[in-house]
Amino acid sequence: MLDGKNIIGFKRSKRGTHTFKTINPILNIENETIYYEAASEEIQEAVSLAQQASAIFAETSYKHRAKFLMAIADEIMALDQSLIDVYCSETGLPEGRAKGERGRTVNQLRMFAQILEEGSFVEASIDTAQPDREPVPKVDLRKMMLPLGPVAVFGASNFPLAYSSAGGDTASALAAGCPVIVKGHPMHAGTGSMVSSAIIKAAKDTSMPEGVLSHLNSSGHEVGEALLKDPFIKAVGFTGSINGGRALFDLAAQRKEPIPVFAEMGSVNPVVLLPEIMKTENEKWAGTIAQSVTLGSGQFCTNPGILLGIKNSDLDQFTEILATKISEVVPASMLHPAIANKYDDGRSAMQEQQGTSLVVEFSEKTKPNIGRPAILKVSAAEFRENPKLHQEVFGPFSLLVECQNIEDLERSVSLLEGQLTASVIGTTEELRGYDYLLKQLENRVGRLVFNGVPTGVEVCASMHHGGPYPATTDSRFTAVGDDAIKRWLRPVCYQNCPDELLPASLQNANPLQLLRRVDGTLTRAKL
Amino acid sequence: MLDGKNIIGFKRSKRGTHTFKTINPILNIENETIYYEAASEEIQEAVSLAQQASAIFAETSYKHRAKFLMAIADEIMALDQSLIDVYCSETGLPEGRAKGERGRTVNQLRMFAQILEEGSFVEASIDTAQPDREPVPKVDLRKMMLPLGPVAVFGASNFPLAYSSAGGDTASALAAGCPVIVKGHPMHAGTGSMVSSAIIKAAKDTSMPEGVLSHLNSSGHEVGEALLKDPFIKAVGFTGSINGGRALFDLAAQRKEPIPVFAEMGSVNPVVLLPEIMKTENEKWAGTIAQSVTLGSGQFCTNPGILLGIKNSDLDQFTEILATKISEVVPASMLHPAIANKYDDGRSAMQEQQGTSLVVEFSEKTKPNIGRPAILKVSAAEFRENPKLHQEVFGPFSLLVECQNIEDLERSVSLLEGQLTASVIGTTEELRGYDYLLKQLENRVGRLVFNGVPTGVEVCASMHHGGPYPATTDSRFTAVGDDAIKRWLRPVCYQNCPDELLPASLQNANPLQLLRRVDGTLTRAKL
Repeated sequence: MLDGKNIIGFKRSKRGTHTFKTINPILNIENETIYYEAASEEIQEAVSLAQQASAIFAETSYKHRAKFLMAIADEIMALDQSLIDVYCSETGLPEGRAKGERGRTVNQLRMFAQILEEGSFVEASIDTAQPDREPVPKVDLRKMMLPLGPVAVFGASNFPLAYSSAGGDTASALAAGCPVIVKGHPMHAGTGSMVSSAIIKAAKDTSMPEGVLSHLNSSGHEVGEALLKDPFIKAVGFTGSINGGRALFDLAAQRKEPIPVFAEMGSVNPVVLLPEIMKTENEKWAGTIAQSVTLGSGQFCTNPGILLGIKNSDLDQFTEILATKISEVVPASMLHPAIANKYDDGRSAMQEQQGTSLVVEFSEKTKPNIGRPAILKVSAAEFRENPKLHQEVFGPFSLLVECQNIEDLERSVSLLEGQLTASVIGTTEELRGYDYLLKQLENRVGRLVFNGVPTGVEVCASMHHGGPYPATTDSRFTAVGDDAIKRWLRPVCYQNCPDELLPASLQNANPLQLLRRVDGTLTRAKL
Repeated sequence: MLDGKNIIGFKRSKRGTHTFKTINPILNIENETIYYEAASEEIQEAVSLAQQASAIFAETSYKHRAKFLMAIADEIMALDQSLIDVYCSETGLPEGRAKGERGRTVNQLRMFAQILEEGSFVEASIDTAQPDREPVPKVDLRKMMLPLGPVAVFGASNFPLAYSSAGGDTASALAAGCPVIVKGHPMHAGTGSMVSSAIIKAAKDTSMPEGVLSHLNSSGHEVGEALLKDPFIKAVGFTGSINGGRALFDLAAQRKEPIPVFAEMGSVNPVVLLPEIMKTENEKWAGTIAQSVTLGSGQFCTNPGILLGIKNSDLDQFTEILATKISEVVPASMLHPAIANKYDDGRSAMQEQQGTSLVVEFSEKTKPNIGRPAILKVSAAEFRENPKLHQEVFGPFSLLVECQNIEDLERSVSLLEGQLTASVIGTTEELRGYDYLLKQLENRVGRLVFNGVPTGVEVCASMHHGGPYPATTDSRFTAVGDDAIKRWLRPVCYQNCPDELLPASLQNANPLQLLRRVDGTLTRAKL
């Protein structure tokens, strides 16, 4: 099933000379398949096909595109156990996670199909003419969203399904009517390739144009750079490290025609533990947080990397229980030896920082590539003086910041950079008294969680998975949920356009029965 | 009335040593007032006040902010003839234009006040909890738009009122809840300063925090650069040249925390003349286009700078009538000697390009700073080979591109860069046959005009005044109309937030009676 080739339009291709393999981190051995890194002519061909497909794909009806997305979901499910097996062999993640992530992936595709069926995403707006208006007549103006053009999607290391070939970026871009070129993540090249093959099958079966999706293998920076520099590429979706995301952002900004880069990058997702609730619920929260820190070996962008509390006997007890709970977790494999090594280095670097001390660490000998959970602690004063302590350690790690009092806590929060999330644990009564703190957190995040942990990102209309830099490169857009489609659209306005030449979404008869803003009122009525 | 000082919060200040004056282009003399360029400590103080005001201003109710905008409109009107006189003395534009632009400016402010009263701009979205959902309970998620923070607005040379101190950028940013620092345009420093003073009066009268607006005088690049580099500035609005806009964009992209720059830049606004309509209506369109090219001495970003038609006797006749109509226009003063000189240089440079020939030019001797209208023509073949011919000449100028046939025309259109607008003149019957051409145009523009000219930008919900680069730096946002507010907002999501701690817009009782998306349905109902 796996041939290690690139997918250029509807063809499979291996014209490059550079090859690589994936690794089974549990067995600590290479998997068999040899992957052929995309050669520059393959990249060019993929972009050229995407550009050609662009006009045709943009013209497909929303229902047709919905059918395509539903077919992708079905084809992914049809891969059945073979996909799950490849997924597990490339990630070390358990089968349950693989199936859960597959469920999320196909649900996302089906959600965008529904969004297409409903049609409000085009934000149809009509202001009718007033030919008799004084001093000048008012023209007829109609506006809707159109696709930006070919999009490059960079697969994420930590979501081989939900944020890769057919993940949220691809699903929303295809829904918007933008062809996609996937730069597969090298750590799960097989999973990515199988899913992209499923997309190609769905594209053929639903008569989508060749070039609507291509898949490029890549183990270095070259393929991504070539994509970023190509004038036909009009937007970029990325999930990964700050260094990677910023490099893409910089390349995009330096183009003759700059393009948007939606990079979802690092986050430490601070969790604030307020004193009143710690008196009665510190045991419960120690357990919940231990689970959140170690979930999936801590390999989530919403992993709680910093805990802030006010030092007293309740917090000491919390810390003790947290240590116990963490030590009870059976450590699991990380995604890749490189990630496991980076985690070990990151954790060690934190331990070497002035003032940090160990709360708990899994210290028994393990097999290779296991992510050994660790909690450190540090005083708020030390924390504030050392920006290195504010950085993410990707893995099952958290740093507890012990504050003297609430001012000490607020001052520490005020130094945090932009985050995907922040969480506050407190009784409703005490939360009332912390509006300054809550505002400080709100200013820094995309999502503010009350009495919960940041892991677990619901895919729905009200989700915002984004946040101020460096959590993302554009705080105005979300990578998860309905509004993720907004990243790939731009408005176009038609002035005095003859009805028959308007896109169906804007015609008088409202043939698609869209909810439209007509002279200021939302309505599905005809004009 | 004019003291030449900067406005730093509620104080007037002249701590700098560099001064400049404005020019009356009709009289070709300097106006009296001496303006003090903002010194770096004044810039810092303005930013610091904006940052302090930011949290308070963001917390003001939408109704309170609406009152502020209405008060600004009233204060601008209260400046009465003194504002009109200063405007005319600094721009050479006639009183009618001054009053018309003032009308648009106060209408924009009042429109954003209405948008605030209505409240849909916050895009309130609620997904209620499903505690019994399997396998995991669904949390309560609520999302709305919040202001980005302090915004720098760069006054436009060609709209001393509608795109300067209290223009569309400022009005929409203040509506969004973002404090504004205006970098006044040096060519109309007095007009800008008077309007900013009106804003300050309105701010005091409606109890807005000091720092909600500051106004900095500036005749060079330094003030703008300092603003762009300040970490407290969170977004930028700019209307002007490609060089200026791109320089700001580059500075913003190079910051540690990159910020969005909404630069509305150049555009040649191509007008395509289809052959069938030219048989019967070439006289009418020659008149309409002559008017559009020379309106306001051609100093509009929507000025039609390129006309494309198929060379035949109808087009020849059109050209002849256009020449006559243009020669009948009484040339008017341009905004500033520098703009008049640049126009003369730009026009001459076009005349020197291979293959261009003169259709008409106002050749009589005029007073200084008069913008003498000119039309050149060139073959499509020459046009395609010379990208210099695709560039904007800011002023009453247009280049007629004579095409051999429709393919020749389509090929020429396909080489155009991103535009604010394109216009097509054709009978409905013939338009039906040009869907490829229409798509080519649609792909390049923010607004597609049918049987009309691009000048005249209606301020309403369905307007899109934007377009692909280099028309703007972000094709996804508009500088004119209701949606201009979207530039200054970002979503924030609240998870399981106690009702009383939610912003009013998201509370169960819906106290602001907003239209909200609740579990997928738009409703004003309580929960």
